[in-house]
Amino acid sequence: MATPTVSAARTARLVGDLAPGRPAYRALADALRLAVADGRIAVGTRLPSERELTGALDVSRTTVTRAYAVLRESGYLASRRGSGSVTTLPAASRRRGTGSLFPADPADGVIDLTCAATRAPAGVVEAYERAVARLPEYLCGAGYLTLGVPELREVVADRYTARGLPTDPDEVLVTSGAVAGLGIVLRALVGRGDRVVVENPTYPNTVDALRAGGARLVPLAMDPDGWDVPEAARAVRSAGARAAVLIPDFHNPTGALLGDEGRAALASALRRAGTVPVVDETIAEVCLEEELALPLPFAAHDPRAISVGSSSKSHWGGLRTGWVRAPRSVLPALVDARVTTDLGAPVLEQLVLLELMRENPGLTAERRDALRASRDTTADALRELVPDLRFGLPRGGLSLWCELPEGVDSTAVAVAAEDEGLLVAAGPRFSVAGGLDRWLRFPYVLDPATMTTAAERLARAVDVVRSGRAPVPAPRRTRSTARAATRPNRPLVA
Amino acid sequence: MATPTVSAARTARLVGDLAPGRPAYRALADALRLAVADGRIAVGTRLPSERELTGALDVSRTTVTRAYAVLRESGYLASRRGSGSVTTLPAASRRRGTGSLFPADPADGVIDLTCAATRAPAGVVEAYERAVARLPEYLCGAGYLTLGVPELREVVADRYTARGLPTDPDEVLVTSGAVAGLGIVLRALVGRGDRVVVENPTYPNTVDALRAGGARLVPLAMDPDGWDVPEAARAVRSAGARAAVLIPDFHNPTGALLGDEGRAALASALRRAGTVPVVDETIAEVCLEEELALPLPFAAHDPRAISVGSSSKSHWGGLRTGWVRAPRSVLPALVDARVTTDLGAPVLEQLVLLELMRENPGLTAERRDALRASRDTTADALRELVPDLRFGLPRGGLSLWCELPEGVDSTAVAVAAEDEGLLVAAGPRFSVAGGLDRWLRFPYVLDPATMTTAAERLARAVDVVRSGRAPVPAPRRTRSTARAATRPNRPLVA
Repeated sequence: MATPTVSAARTARLVGDLAPGRPAYRALADALRLAVADGRIAVGTRLPSERELTGALDVSRTTVTRAYAVLRESGYLASRRGSGSVTTLPAASRRRGTGSLFPADPADGVIDLTCAATRAPAGVVEAYERAVARLPEYLCGAGYLTLGVPELREVVADRYTARGLPTDPDEVLVTSGAVAGLGIVLRALVGRGDRVVVENPTYPNTVDALRAGGARLVPLAMDPDGWDVPEAARAVRSAGARAAVLIPDFHNPTGALLGDEGRAALASALRRAGTVPVVDETIAEVCLEEELALPLPFAAHDPRAISVGSSSKSHWGGLRTGWVRAPRSVLPALVDARVTTDLGAPVLEQLVLLELMRENPGLTAERRDALRASRDTTADALRELVPDLRFGLPRGGLSLWCELPEGVDSTAVAVAAEDEGLLVAAGPRFSVAGGLDRWLRFPYVLDPATMTTAAERLARAVDVVRSGRAPVPAPRRTRSTARAATRPNRPLVA
Repeated sequence: MATPTVSAARTARLVGDLAPGRPAYRALADALRLAVADGRIAVGTRLPSERELTGALDVSRTTVTRAYAVLRESGYLASRRGSGSVTTLPAASRRRGTGSLFPADPADGVIDLTCAATRAPAGVVEAYERAVARLPEYLCGAGYLTLGVPELREVVADRYTARGLPTDPDEVLVTSGAVAGLGIVLRALVGRGDRVVVENPTYPNTVDALRAGGARLVPLAMDPDGWDVPEAARAVRSAGARAAVLIPDFHNPTGALLGDEGRAALASALRRAGTVPVVDETIAEVCLEEELALPLPFAAHDPRAISVGSSSKSHWGGLRTGWVRAPRSVLPALVDARVTTDLGAPVLEQLVLLELMRENPGLTAERRDALRASRDTTADALRELVPDLRFGLPRGGLSLWCELPEGVDSTAVAVAAEDEGLLVAAGPRFSVAGGLDRWLRFPYVLDPATMTTAAERLARAVDVVRSGRAPVPAPRRTRSTARAATRPNRPLVA
């Protein structure tokens, strides 16, 4: 395979204006380092020659020579015979053998699609750097912020207000991610034996958390393309549940979006039933169509609603920070529930999220384009390679919810896919009440080329199962994730 | 009050050698900025004049002039008429009015000693900066590390090995702090209705977490100076408990240290009773006496023991990262219990802790000296101001466990102290079974001058209660922390 290249003109654009007040070679080296670090220049790319970049940037040749030397020293550039200067990452070699830290682990070639989550977007490193610069303001404190960094609470509140739901910072609690936020809300709200309505299918960790807390689950059937609202309203009225956990924005795993009319109808049924909506908004910002008019946040239809958000999907999962928006009167109970599991989110993480949200509360245009390209490539490849696989094209979120051809069991496919070097989560993992044996979640979270390879592997796995060459799968729900569980450092499904 | 100063010679020592390869004024400005940020040069200190520092550093006058200009621009230095250049913090003004972010909040003059936790030590900012430099290695992953950054697991394992307990990285799980770690262990280990032995008094959040999980608590009485081991062994044998939560290293709140003989005897009783020791080692590294030979970690006496550690007390509470050390066979159950509350600790936080622990796994000598000075000043002030207050001088940990004079109720004192501008936690908050009405935890976590002021306020509060001028306190346990609870962003007790 030929080494990919980046032109001198594009490199110059990525570098932008060199910050004045410091040596130009330093500023150039830093700009290139960040572009490699956050993926705007992919690892393994040949940079323009020193001569070419000198021309494009209009700086002295010495500046470029010294900048490249700095990058070589710090491990971001390697000189390869015949390939010029190729980008690399420091300590990349150390990463091998540490297990599957990465969705596509170069160490073993396995593509891991058990998590619907992407690599970090451009600009993340700069946000961390700016956050570290602000850290000194907090160092003279003990570092416990049970409600959160005040400015971050303001920014989160402003985002809700901008989305059409007026919100005060006093209604926001900063958490250590959405899973932590949901845990806090459910501990505060739901007692043992309480009924809780959950969509079926839904995000598996929510079900696990509810079960661990002793809740009795009432499944709310979802069609592949969304909610049957009148049916859902009936189910809510008869359930007599304490709470309902809903994912109305690009629902995980189906990708469906509940419109304003549906929200209003469901909110009204919940209010009459005395059931508190707990709204998982983790994916709310992952809208892939710029022109799509988004519905109002669910809480605009029911002021009792408690919303749980996170930066994991819109920004990066390694930044484990999120928030809860709740009526002011509920916040003290949430703080009480939090301090039995953590004493506050880490200060720096909060400052990073503050920086990122100030710059862009949702997806950047660049990231939206990249995800849409991956989604479309994945859909095209699957349509071609597995023509009788059925799925809709979601307008947001991170995965396709796929129905396998009749007679093809998704757990068997997941097991066969493992032999092909692909990890995916089968439908039963998302099921509240059993079943979903022919469904499969297929996240489009990697670059288009890798997604094409993943689709090819899935196609081979489907063929293996269809041809009867597959081993009989072991009991469901264990086997489908059994091997994934032996891979260190990855949640089974996220 | 005269403006404190720092001599040119000391400033030169703090600055050290200026890093070559970059402009000297930049390197000097950075070094001074870090020294101010992490408190080696206190905020409000007058720096040496440019002429003096030029001489002490043996650099050009221009270098110092430009460095001071950079500091002024970035908000770390202010020129005050007649006071020369005085250190300050950027955005310090913004901090006012945001509530009690700080143990001694300049906004309202209240000294908050409800948390036994200190400001961040020197060197923290550098560790964050080094960690950000390493972050790019992780950006191409989804950022979910359910077990932890491999190198950090190694460093934690090495620390146990160095303390006499051979440990493999496979026996270490990285958590989002000790409270999170304890939560994970208790969810994995303890079912509803299970009995759990806990020391009385103990850390209140542990009791809250156990109660929330439905455990039945069996209190293990502690004497003010530590464990009555034969009595504890008898209690353990008769309890038939599933687990025992112990704080053998500078016990919170008493400060007592359980020796190796006591550990062996207690471990043996626990083993015979089939009770799993869950050891809270949060304060294990906060040893204030360099020459003290520390006992072996508890798990060296019982391989079934599960140990929970954290960086909050040894390094900084704003870095919300800790670990669990457990037998390898237990780790999968811990991961299962974790993913219902978080999907892993934040990547950057883990890299920061890695940097800090590589440099110094426990307290730095500087920090130990500072804490010991605060402890001794506090003890001297209390002995002088409240001669009939009784307390021992702990050899580690962060607080004095004080017995008030007969007839003086600690909750009443805590309420009266609030009127004097001092927040402290009364004994009942640490009680598992009620009582401890004459006890008070007095953390020595602030600088000696502030601790002296705190002691004076406590003395006045004791006088008020003793003279009968105090209002009758409202019902216990609520009133003692009632006003503290209205202060935003602080856990009630930590």
